Amino acid sequence: MDFSLDPRLEADSLLVGDLALTQVRLHNDARFPWLVLIPRRPNLAEIFDLSETERATLTQEVSACGAELRAVTQCDKINVGALGNLVRQLHVHVVARFERDPAWPGPVWGFGTRTPYAAETSADLIARLRSALAMRA
Amino acid sequence: MDFSLDPRLEADSLLVGDLALTQVRLHNDARFPWLVLIPRRPNLAEIFDLSETERATLTQEVSACGAELRAVTQCDKINVGALGNLVRQLHVHVVARFERDPAWPGPVWGFGTRTPYAAETSADLIARLRSALAMRA
Repeated sequence: MDFSLDPRLEADSLLVGDLALTQVRLHNDARFPWLVLIPRRPNLAEIFDLSETERATLTQEVSACGAELRAVTQCDKINVGALGNLVRQLHVHVVARFERDPAWPGPVWGFGTRTPYAAETSADLIARLRSALAMRA
Repeated sequence: MDFSLDPRLEADSLLVGDLALTQVRLHNDARFPWLVLIPRRPNLAEIFDLSETERATLTQEVSACGAELRAVTQCDKINVGALGNLVRQLHVHVVARFERDPAWPGPVWGFGTRTPYAAETSADLIARLRSALAMRA
């Protein structure tokens, strides 16, 4: 179980906390409220590399993060994606989308340039998400 | 249970067959081998609109389609996405990606212009997918 986080995922995001299977991180891009869930298991690239039980857990965690992200942000739509074309370690994006956001209605992946959060803005969002997901700080 | 398929989804894709929960369709775009899975339930927009049991079934079907699509196409990566910014009916994309495909490594959604299949090419791919997924024609 020697899980280690891909350095690019780590550099581009901030820790929110751990759920049963996944590490939940906030993508450090103030343009879109955006979570990334990484199963804490080694050598995963595809959803079908997980066991059936782990896949069901992953889905529950993606679903919970989507519901809470919508509740916290009051967004118009949640986008979920597992691409992995650049970073092969399995990770699932859960993104709050607004009809007024710069990429709407297109996808966020590969869109423009990431805009890091001001520290207090990300700290506030992380605190609200931790509370909503019943995570310890 | 008055499921009805969104007319845009129907117009842009070809029926492959039904799994326990989802209708599986081939997106009619010869640039990317691309399945779309639509849960046959009314009034769904988000993954968290499904029951926990249905979500687990959806995940198994997405996973099976991804594994078989990779086996059939010998692709480099499977991309999975549930966006719904344009078509709100819940649908999950399962796309075979190649390092030589025109959108690599970016996402396929919103990329360029859809290129419909020649009829015999799509018929052959659908037949292979039906066989892999043990679906009746």
